[in-house]
Amino acid sequence: MQPTNVNASIITIGDELLIGQVIDSNSAWMARELNGIGIWVRHRVAVGDNREEIWKALDQESEGSEVILITGGLGPTADDITKPLLCDYFGSQLIVDQQALANVKNIFEKILKRPLSESNLKQAEVPDRCTVIQNKRGTAPGMWFEKEGKIFVSMPGVPNEMQGMMTSGVLSNLQKKFTLPFILHKTLLTAGIGESSLAEYIQDFESALPAPFSLAYLPNYGMVRLRLTGRADEKIKLTNEMQSQFERLKQIVAEWLVIDEDLSLQDAIGRLLKERKQTLSTAESCTGGYIAHLITTIPGSSQYFLGSIVSYSNGIKESLLQVDALTLKHEGAVSRETVRQMAQGALSALGTDYTIAVSGIMGPEGGTAEKPVGTVWVAVANHQQILDQQFYFRFDRLRNIELTANTALNLLRKFIIAQSPL
Amino acid sequence: MQPTNVNASIITIGDELLIGQVIDSNSAWMARELNGIGIWVRHRVAVGDNREEIWKALDQESEGSEVILITGGLGPTADDITKPLLCDYFGSQLIVDQQALANVKNIFEKILKRPLSESNLKQAEVPDRCTVIQNKRGTAPGMWFEKEGKIFVSMPGVPNEMQGMMTSGVLSNLQKKFTLPFILHKTLLTAGIGESSLAEYIQDFESALPAPFSLAYLPNYGMVRLRLTGRADEKIKLTNEMQSQFERLKQIVAEWLVIDEDLSLQDAIGRLLKERKQTLSTAESCTGGYIAHLITTIPGSSQYFLGSIVSYSNGIKESLLQVDALTLKHEGAVSRETVRQMAQGALSALGTDYTIAVSGIMGPEGGTAEKPVGTVWVAVANHQQILDQQFYFRFDRLRNIELTANTALNLLRKFIIAQSPL
Repeated sequence: MQPTNVNASIITIGDELLIGQVIDSNSAWMARELNGIGIWVRHRVAVGDNREEIWKALDQESEGSEVILITGGLGPTADDITKPLLCDYFGSQLIVDQQALANVKNIFEKILKRPLSESNLKQAEVPDRCTVIQNKRGTAPGMWFEKEGKIFVSMPGVPNEMQGMMTSGVLSNLQKKFTLPFILHKTLLTAGIGESSLAEYIQDFESALPAPFSLAYLPNYGMVRLRLTGRADEKIKLTNEMQSQFERLKQIVAEWLVIDEDLSLQDAIGRLLKERKQTLSTAESCTGGYIAHLITTIPGSSQYFLGSIVSYSNGIKESLLQVDALTLKHEGAVSRETVRQMAQGALSALGTDYTIAVSGIMGPEGGTAEKPVGTVWVAVANHQQILDQQFYFRFDRLRNIELTANTALNLLRKFIIAQSPL
Repeated sequence: MQPTNVNASIITIGDELLIGQVIDSNSAWMARELNGIGIWVRHRVAVGDNREEIWKALDQESEGSEVILITGGLGPTADDITKPLLCDYFGSQLIVDQQALANVKNIFEKILKRPLSESNLKQAEVPDRCTVIQNKRGTAPGMWFEKEGKIFVSMPGVPNEMQGMMTSGVLSNLQKKFTLPFILHKTLLTAGIGESSLAEYIQDFESALPAPFSLAYLPNYGMVRLRLTGRADEKIKLTNEMQSQFERLKQIVAEWLVIDEDLSLQDAIGRLLKERKQTLSTAESCTGGYIAHLITTIPGSSQYFLGSIVSYSNGIKESLLQVDALTLKHEGAVSRETVRQMAQGALSALGTDYTIAVSGIMGPEGGTAEKPVGTVWVAVANHQQILDQQFYFRFDRLRNIELTANTALNLLRKFIIAQSPL
C-alpha cells in the first residue's frame, strides 16, 4: 500500500501560554515524535481558555490536518474548560470512567496520602464517545476521538504525563491508522563558524541535493546544527542515499565538525572520556556550577565526572584552588593567570585527568572600562599542559553564562582530542 | 478617549519549530510584554518555511487581531523565504536600506572581523513599503507594515535581537497607535500544596471575584504560582481594588506562601540573605551544581553566595567535605548521615553562614530496591543546627534534578526564616 502524506496540527490550550508565564516545551517534543513516525506537523497553535477560540481552532486545524493533538486545559482547577467543550464538539456527554476513577483514588490514597477532593473526582469523567487513554503518571485521563476521518487526541499539559500517553499508545495507534512514509533525519553539530559563512561553504552541496532531501540550519549559542532530512516510500534506498549525502556534508564541514550525531557537546565529551577511561572536573567562577550541571545531565556521567569547585568568591579561589592572593590582587579574578591557577588547583584538589576553569563578568553589573561585561577567561588543562583563551560575549547574564559554558566545553573537547588521540 | 480592546497574534516561522528541534521561547516573552501594555494575545501560531502556509496564517490572524507580530524566517540562509513573501503580501518590492547596510558592514568589519558575504549583504534589503526597524544586535532588520488598519511587524527569530527591537521601538509605537486598557497582574508563589487542594481553599474567593478580575493557577515543579489579573479603563481604581483582592488571597494561602511577587525561590532567598547580611554555599552530589547555578542566575548573587563543592564522587565527599569513609561504606552516599556530614563539611570548607547539602539517585540507572531512583536526602544547616529530610521523586533525570533543587531551596528558605527572624 502506498504511504499517505499525513499532516498534523498541535493545539495547546491555556491562558498561561498567551500571557507568557509558561514556555511551551510540549509542542517541540510532540513534533519530534510525530516526525519520527513520518507525520508532518503542519501547524502549531496556542489558544486561551476560551470556548469560542478553542472551537474555532478545532475547526480550522481539522481542515488541513488528519491528526489534531491537543494538550492542556484538563487540570482540576476552575480555569479549565476543555472537557465540556470536547463533549459538545463531538456530540457526547460526560460519564465516569471506572478505570480512571480507580487511578485517581489510587494516586491520592497510596502516593499522595491526601484526601480526595470533589474536583479530583471530576477528573475521572470523560465524554462517552471517546476512547480513554489511561494516565499512568497523573490524574487526568487522555481522550481519543474520531470524526469525519480525522483523529483528535486530547492530553494533559503536564509534560511528563503527555509524554507517557504518547509513547505508551498514541504514537503506535497512529501508525496503525495510517500507512506512513519513511522519514530520516541526520544531524551534525558544528562550532566556531557562523550560520551565513557555513551556508556559503555548503551552497553547492545544498543546491545539488536531490528532491527527497532538504537541509536545515539550527543555530544555538555559538554553534550551528545542520539537519539533513529525507522522505521516501522505501526504506532501504533512502537509508543508503542518506548515508552518502551525509558523508559528503561531513567532509565539507570537517573543519568545524563537533559530532556527527544529534548530540550535545556534553554528550560528545562524555563519549571521549569514556573511550579514554579518563576523568573530568570543573573550577567555575562566573558560570556558578552551570558547566558541572550540563555535564551531569547526561545519564552515567558519574563514570567520568568527579566533581567541581564553584569558587564564586575570591576567598574560595584562594583556600580551595590555591590561587595566589597576589595574583588576585594584581591581575584580578578575571585574568589569564587566575584561570590557569584555578585549573591547576582543580586538578590537584579534585584529582582528575582533565579540568575546565572559567572566570568572567556575566553582567549586568561588575564591568569596567578595561574589563567590560562579557569578558571571560577560560583554561582547559591536564597534568601535562594548560591551554587558555579569552572571549568576549555581549549578551544578557543568562546567555553569557550559556555561551561561556558551551565555549569552554568545546575548547575542552578539542583539547582532549589533541592531547590524547585514540 | 475610551480604551480599545486590542487583540494580537504571534506568528513564528520556521521548519525547526515544526520538527521540534527548537523550543519557542520568543512567544512567551512577546506575550508577556504585550500583556504589560494592555494588548491581549488571542492566538499564537507556528508555521513552517512554506509560502502558502505563511500567507494563510497572515490572512487568518489578521481577521481576528489588530496586531500581528511575526518572528523568524529572516536569517541569511537558503531556507528562509519570509522576506520575498512579505514583499508580495504587501504589494512591495525589495530595496537596499542604507542604514541596515551600514549596520551589516559594521558588524562584520568591526565586531566579527570576517569578510562580508553575498548573503549577508542581502540582509540589508527590505520591502519598500515598510518602516524599517534597525537591529542593534544583529544583521537582519525588522519591518513594520500597515494594511487595512492592521499592524504587522516582522522580526528576526534570534531572541536577543527580537527583544531589542521590541523594547527599543515596537512596544512604544503600539502604545502610540492605540488607546489601550489598563492591565494589572499580581502573582504569588506557593509551595508544598497541590494545584487541586489549593483550588478548594480558594474556591469561595475565586467565585466571589468581581468582573474585571480573574485568577490563574500556574503549577511548576512542586510549586504553584497564583496570578490575579485585573483589566480596566481606569488606573487608580483598579490598582486599589487589585491591592485589596490580592491581600485577601495572600491571607487565604498564608500557610503555603513563599513570596508575594512574581519571583523565583532563588530570588526570595537572595533577598532574605541580603537583608540579614548572611552568606550561603552548597554541597551538591546528585544535582551536580544545578542549585549553585540557580542561585547565581540572580544578578548580584556574589554578595551572598560564596561557592559550592560539587562532590559527584565519594572520593571528593571524603577529601573536600570530610564525610567519613565508614559512613559512606555503611550508610551509603544517599543517606541522612552523609548529607548531614556534607553540610557540616561545606560550612567549614566554604566558610558560609548557611549551606544546602543534597545527595540522591536521579536515574535512569543507579536505583536499588531499598533506594529506588528518585530517593533524595537534603540537609540545610547553619552553625547552630542541621535540618534534614528525605524525599522521593518519580520523574525523569532532568525533572528529578529540578525538583530536588527547588525542594532544597524551599527547605532552606523556611530554615533561614525560622533560624533568623528579622
